[in-house]
Amino acid sequence: MLAIGDELILGQKTDTNSAWISDALTARGVRVVEHATVADDTPRLVAAIERLGAAADVLVTTGGLGPTADDLTRAALGEAMGEGLVEDPAALEEIQSWFRGRGREMPATNSVQALRPVSARSLANPNGTAPGLASVIGEGGHACDVFCLPGPPHEMRPMFESFVIPAIRAQAGYAVVTRALHTFGLGESDVAARLGELMDRDRNPLVGTTASLGVVTCRIRYEGGAGTGAGALDGAEAAVREKLGDAVFAADGASDGALARAVIDKLRDRGEQLVVVESCTGGLLGETITRVAGSSDVLLGGWITYSNQMKSAAVGVKPETLDRVGAVSREVAVEMAEGGLAASSAAGGAKHALAITGIAGPGGGSDEKPAGTVWIARASAGAPTDVRCFRFRGGREAVRRWSVNAALGMLRLELDAVQTSLLGQIEPAVNPVI
Amino acid sequence: MLAIGDELILGQKTDTNSAWISDALTARGVRVVEHATVADDTPRLVAAIERLGAAADVLVTTGGLGPTADDLTRAALGEAMGEGLVEDPAALEEIQSWFRGRGREMPATNSVQALRPVSARSLANPNGTAPGLASVIGEGGHACDVFCLPGPPHEMRPMFESFVIPAIRAQAGYAVVTRALHTFGLGESDVAARLGELMDRDRNPLVGTTASLGVVTCRIRYEGGAGTGAGALDGAEAAVREKLGDAVFAADGASDGALARAVIDKLRDRGEQLVVVESCTGGLLGETITRVAGSSDVLLGGWITYSNQMKSAAVGVKPETLDRVGAVSREVAVEMAEGGLAASSAAGGAKHALAITGIAGPGGGSDEKPAGTVWIARASAGAPTDVRCFRFRGGREAVRRWSVNAALGMLRLELDAVQTSLLGQIEPAVNPVI
Repeated sequence: MLAIGDELILGQKTDTNSAWISDALTARGVRVVEHATVADDTPRLVAAIERLGAAADVLVTTGGLGPTADDLTRAALGEAMGEGLVEDPAALEEIQSWFRGRGREMPATNSVQALRPVSARSLANPNGTAPGLASVIGEGGHACDVFCLPGPPHEMRPMFESFVIPAIRAQAGYAVVTRALHTFGLGESDVAARLGELMDRDRNPLVGTTASLGVVTCRIRYEGGAGTGAGALDGAEAAVREKLGDAVFAADGASDGALARAVIDKLRDRGEQLVVVESCTGGLLGETITRVAGSSDVLLGGWITYSNQMKSAAVGVKPETLDRVGAVSREVAVEMAEGGLAASSAAGGAKHALAITGIAGPGGGSDEKPAGTVWIARASAGAPTDVRCFRFRGGREAVRRWSVNAALGMLRLELDAVQTSLLGQIEPAVNPVI
Repeated sequence: MLAIGDELILGQKTDTNSAWISDALTARGVRVVEHATVADDTPRLVAAIERLGAAADVLVTTGGLGPTADDLTRAALGEAMGEGLVEDPAALEEIQSWFRGRGREMPATNSVQALRPVSARSLANPNGTAPGLASVIGEGGHACDVFCLPGPPHEMRPMFESFVIPAIRAQAGYAVVTRALHTFGLGESDVAARLGELMDRDRNPLVGTTASLGVVTCRIRYEGGAGTGAGALDGAEAAVREKLGDAVFAADGASDGALARAVIDKLRDRGEQLVVVESCTGGLLGETITRVAGSSDVLLGGWITYSNQMKSAAVGVKPETLDRVGAVSREVAVEMAEGGLAASSAAGGAKHALAITGIAGPGGGSDEKPAGTVWIARASAGAPTDVRCFRFRGGREAVRRWSVNAALGMLRLELDAVQTSLLGQIEPAVNPVI
């Protein structure tokens, strides 16, 4: 993958195309070996195309196909191929018709977008003025298929599906298949210690781990004869599950949002609803849940009780409790959760409430309650309330995101009836002090 | 920049570190030439370190410093340096003390994190167990400073500030200085048309634009003799402000969160408080505001009225209004905002309320109200309520994020007493239908 553009190299924009394309290619059994990003600079572009073309069988570039002076992909591909550029009449007609469809004449500058290296092929772009390019480069018997696609994702993605996917020759009888198991409640090194030799790098299936805000994901990857993958993955998954037990809360999908998706699915299966009461997270727990389409089945609503007055007015936290032990305390977390559950009855009633109160920082901490101290309570109709204190590190944003995952993790323990000692083992950032 | 990890190469995670580091380096006058990403694979890692080390003066790697078998950066750096690994006693002590501080013994697996190539230096990581590495590689007279940092951004960023920034040698007598002006209410092409020749690519200061969720930021960049920058920037800023007028709401800082920071500062200056009432954004507006440290001065709290029952129970939206015109309507948006303002009196009373109700999608739309239809209302004590309908595009996440910015933009119009026609001009994704 080669991403092209000053805005990427200067850090003004994050390249999301390479990850998207890699995910799509990996799912089809293609092994991705490198992503590179270079500036709008012809010599660097030519060098990158030549180097990657020599190293891979397929090269997909994104960006640099616009109409302005800093769009250099066409010229660089021509130089790497040792060919001049010619105007492609069909591509020119498509660009002109794109403008006509919007009631405008094509500006003269856009005609450069119809240029292509002599032996390259133009690829139609239904969502913009930049046609793509397809060609083959290589020497000494090695050939690499090159696809140059525009940078905007809504233009690139349909062209990738139309032109790149059909061109990928499945290697006969060979497949790469993957599976993910998400855990919460164990640190990454605990997971690795439990998995032991299952993580050896020369095994197939290969097991690797990644950690994000307390969610440790085990990724199982198998390469081999087509038709043999499912059985191999099943065997490896069973072995991983045996080592990790109750810490596994879901399989497959991205790590980001995995806890929210799992909790939503479990609540939906049980026909139960949830309310949230948020202080230091200020809406992030609700936002994390509602980012998942279909969350309206299970989230009744919530309260952002950022001030003490809102804690009392909205969910009935007693002013004397706030005076006596402060907003960041076991007692207030419990009153928020149980008060939210009680207040939800006016809206039909939820089965569960999650409450978060803490010091996100950087200000507001003390020796006794340093920034990162967060109390989280889960109250559920007909079950004892669970309340825990965490000390998170890593700054305001990290503290808030860890808090949300810890709250979802606490609800998951209740929904799955899992032994509650699990959360005592999270590291590095989560450290229950009770 | 070299980002390391199977999860990046497989497209399971997007590399945001390279853009963040590039932005920080560019701001300090360093020219970034390439980003590369490779898998957890020692030969590929060694080859990438050697290639990039030969091409650049500074190489920053991220990732691959964890305690497990797929963390290979330490070994690859050693191989590229032609050196074996030794255990760094100070680094080991830091890792052990990190665990002790959490009431635990260091698992034996973590001791590998204290390894470093013989002549490399360990870099302390205050937020995790992975120390970084610093070394010099090179041959034939070329030397490249290599910094290996951990992948998690909250660990990487402070280490980048502590170790990489001080090592960058400023070019004597030469400076690159930048300034940013943030606008809301104009589309990027409107901004470009107004700026005209100010955006010519051969000017110094150079003016460029970037657009993110309705915030169009003009970045002014000057390169030249040290000491001459401030005056040049002042002149360019005055010229830009003259062209863009009321659309400019703030200067400097990142585009992300710029609207929230500006609104919080203006409210604080006026001693006024805000409440939020969120349906389709589910907490994202509150989250966006409270992501800013110090927002507790101005955010009293809010309600996540995700279900119709919560809309009625929490802020008094009339059930007959919901029955008659539906939850996504002018009337319900107004009742949410005015009801939130009224309900806030029990908590001491806010001056302003922002309410959002819409169809984030992908489901829930109809011909009359397609996914992306969002009604937003601002109610303020002693001022007429402002209510608008938007049609956002780009999927669930984009619709939610545009909604939050449009709500903050509506409040900003009131706080700055700006002509309200501005929001009628946002494009492409914002399209008020009233």
